[in-house]
Amino acid sequence: MTRLLIVGGSDAGISAGLRARELAPEVEVTLVVGDAYPNYSVCGIPYYLGEEVPDWRSLAHRTRDELEAAGLELLLEHTARRLDPSARRLAVSGPSGADGTLAYDVLVVATGARPVQPPIAGLDALGPGEGVHLVHTMDDALAIAATLSEGAVEEVLIVGAGFIGIEMAEAFVHRGLGVTLVEALPEVLPTVDADLGRLVRDVLEAHHIDVITTTKVTEIRRSGTTLVIHGTGGLERRAQLVLIATGVRPDTELAARAGATLGAGGAIAVDRRMRTNLPNVFGAGDCVETYHRILDTTTYLPLGTTAHKQGRIAGENAVGGDRCFAGSVGTQVVRVFDTVVARTGLRAVEAEAAGWHPLTSASTLDDHKAYYPGARTIEVRITGDVPTGRLLGLQMLGNLATGVAKRIDTAAAALHHRMNVGDLSDLDLSYTPPLGSPWDAMQSAAQQWQRASTSHGS
Amino acid sequence: MTRLLIVGGSDAGISAGLRARELAPEVEVTLVVGDAYPNYSVCGIPYYLGEEVPDWRSLAHRTRDELEAAGLELLLEHTARRLDPSARRLAVSGPSGADGTLAYDVLVVATGARPVQPPIAGLDALGPGEGVHLVHTMDDALAIAATLSEGAVEEVLIVGAGFIGIEMAEAFVHRGLGVTLVEALPEVLPTVDADLGRLVRDVLEAHHIDVITTTKVTEIRRSGTTLVIHGTGGLERRAQLVLIATGVRPDTELAARAGATLGAGGAIAVDRRMRTNLPNVFGAGDCVETYHRILDTTTYLPLGTTAHKQGRIAGENAVGGDRCFAGSVGTQVVRVFDTVVARTGLRAVEAEAAGWHPLTSASTLDDHKAYYPGARTIEVRITGDVPTGRLLGLQMLGNLATGVAKRIDTAAAALHHRMNVGDLSDLDLSYTPPLGSPWDAMQSAAQQWQRASTSHGS
Repeated sequence: MTRLLIVGGSDAGISAGLRARELAPEVEVTLVVGDAYPNYSVCGIPYYLGEEVPDWRSLAHRTRDELEAAGLELLLEHTARRLDPSARRLAVSGPSGADGTLAYDVLVVATGARPVQPPIAGLDALGPGEGVHLVHTMDDALAIAATLSEGAVEEVLIVGAGFIGIEMAEAFVHRGLGVTLVEALPEVLPTVDADLGRLVRDVLEAHHIDVITTTKVTEIRRSGTTLVIHGTGGLERRAQLVLIATGVRPDTELAARAGATLGAGGAIAVDRRMRTNLPNVFGAGDCVETYHRILDTTTYLPLGTTAHKQGRIAGENAVGGDRCFAGSVGTQVVRVFDTVVARTGLRAVEAEAAGWHPLTSASTLDDHKAYYPGARTIEVRITGDVPTGRLLGLQMLGNLATGVAKRIDTAAAALHHRMNVGDLSDLDLSYTPPLGSPWDAMQSAAQQWQRASTSHGS
Repeated sequence: MTRLLIVGGSDAGISAGLRARELAPEVEVTLVVGDAYPNYSVCGIPYYLGEEVPDWRSLAHRTRDELEAAGLELLLEHTARRLDPSARRLAVSGPSGADGTLAYDVLVVATGARPVQPPIAGLDALGPGEGVHLVHTMDDALAIAATLSEGAVEEVLIVGAGFIGIEMAEAFVHRGLGVTLVEALPEVLPTVDADLGRLVRDVLEAHHIDVITTTKVTEIRRSGTTLVIHGTGGLERRAQLVLIATGVRPDTELAARAGATLGAGGAIAVDRRMRTNLPNVFGAGDCVETYHRILDTTTYLPLGTTAHKQGRIAGENAVGGDRCFAGSVGTQVVRVFDTVVARTGLRAVEAEAAGWHPLTSASTLDDHKAYYPGARTIEVRITGDVPTGRLLGLQMLGNLATGVAKRIDTAAAALHHRMNVGDLSDLDLSYTPPLGSPWDAMQSAAQQWQRASTSHGS
């Protein structure tokens, strides 16, 4: 009997445990979970707080009973204190503060990430009790819900207009609150090109969100029941709730203190079999670096989909498998009201930094044959390497009805296989007039890129 | 100056001409078009006849002016009579019956297909004037419209429940007509597995279409203003309009008489550069055989998407290019009211005939996280080869909102790259709770296939 110990009860940890049990039902799998919410969909928090999902309990991918029925032993509200890889022991403390030590044969570190605290004066002194929140865990979500339920919140200010900041802005609008969104960079959703970011900003503003870019929040102070927020460029706002959504950093403390090498973005270094440098210790999810298939190097790109994949591989290899992580191509999607924005692969600025000679071409294409009622346009941005023609990335924006989220998946599959832009037209994609065109929008955009690339090169 | 002559003005012919002019603007491109409707979307005919598309003229992918502006010379209502490859001449007759001969340097045969006439007694004597129709050309469409506009049609009977028969059934329902759909095989839409066909049949019946399977129409007679239809199993129906939708065969007469070798399905044999055996004669579209990328052999699989691809390659190679057709993977999609059915690759029965040892697993999966409102199920059927694990095909059925048409494209891209079922979980597909799951439905289905395959093999 082997004992697999997993530190972390979110996507990566649970995936590792389930996969290990699937392949080796005789293995004893124990998960050390920091909070009381194993296997929760933290990506679903904005929809709970926006009251689209009425009960936070439904955010659980699986219930505790289901996890236990699958053979996972859960130590909830336990904190991993010290990892000793040479002795194969993990010191933990439980909810009552009682300490203990767990022996293991193989361990998976899946400690996730922690929110970045931006350098804002006054922030250290303010917590959920004062209306200043993070949104990273179920505890954070319940704290926001508690603040909102007090009924005094009319205005919300969000620091950071990335995926989470934008999703939360929409959630607060759903609740009828006034929302200000402050972003340090020149455009919202900086993970896509600024011209697409501009279209997202238009959507946010159409829903009465006050979007302020190129502005850093510098100070937050409490004044009676109100928070007073100051920032660069003379920003001054008042709000009853402030949300900090400025990204995450890997939670590496446990592993680093045990001697784990850190890699890209300060995350735990792992090979493609998800092995750390520590003997019998694997790592997966937001605490480890991610092999990027297009860059062919590691990067820090914490995403739930990647955590599931890495966890599954760590779990398989922990019980004697030999599977490699195929790599991320950086696929991301967000729904902003009725608009969907998606990307996969690299943008020109990222590709250029990696040594390519990229060209991005912009196309506006119908989602289906225009003669059939209801056709809408999709914005497509294709980035390719001019000398080689290699496809490097694709960005899309369109109405919910245009299928952008699934169209980007076809591009992700093409990137996975390192296709050239010109070869996208070879793909045998589906067509019926109400749902597409004989040349799919991506293929038409690829043909436009080829023409632009030819004139660019000449 | 080279003269490129193209016989045919539909998808393949137009694509060939446009691509040739794009690459070699000095080439003179002339298209011999049998009717007055070059570059029409014949796939759109059901939506025009169903009155979702008000004006049939909008079915043109491009107007005649646009085609001429792109440098294509059009000889409309001209019939190609005789091809002489040794002299590089094509005899044609025009609308007034006047004969002529055209010289060429390179020729592309894109003569398309013709409807199959099933062996039904009385059929030869009945035409559009008597209410018996085909639906293959714009002339056919306008003839049906004329019959319907006479106002006497209350009941329609359709012979054949493939894609076209089903789309036309829906069109007639949209017009408030009573519809009977007769299929010789045991289930409708025989291009997908019968269990999915059964679900399509449920949709049709829910819209009051009388679906009759395992039944052959044997006789059609006119009785006054009514057509009397008899079939096997005692079938007897009356209708004012009968539509024959029993498939097509390649139109090879011109090329065959000139010495072209015929191949799969009796279609004109071509290599992957779209060359026929005749010197300086290329072929593309519904008149030629299609290289199937999974079967690694040629087949007859006439589809608009394939015609566009083959035409583009023929046009490129006709002006000195050297591009190969990458092959079809057999991707098809149809919308049936609010349901979408799609397939790509091979079904088990087809794979078995080709020497594989296929297993098809059936999964019913949510289109997005169930906690977010509006989740709907998708039926997924994955077919893989048990000994090698190779992905052979995928079928899906779901509501319009589930994105099935674009999801099948990701599977088509995976098939294009000859992936294994087990490797589908490596694809970095997009995820946000309102639109997907951390493991995409296809990936969850693939993991289910792997489990089924393991127990199948043991």
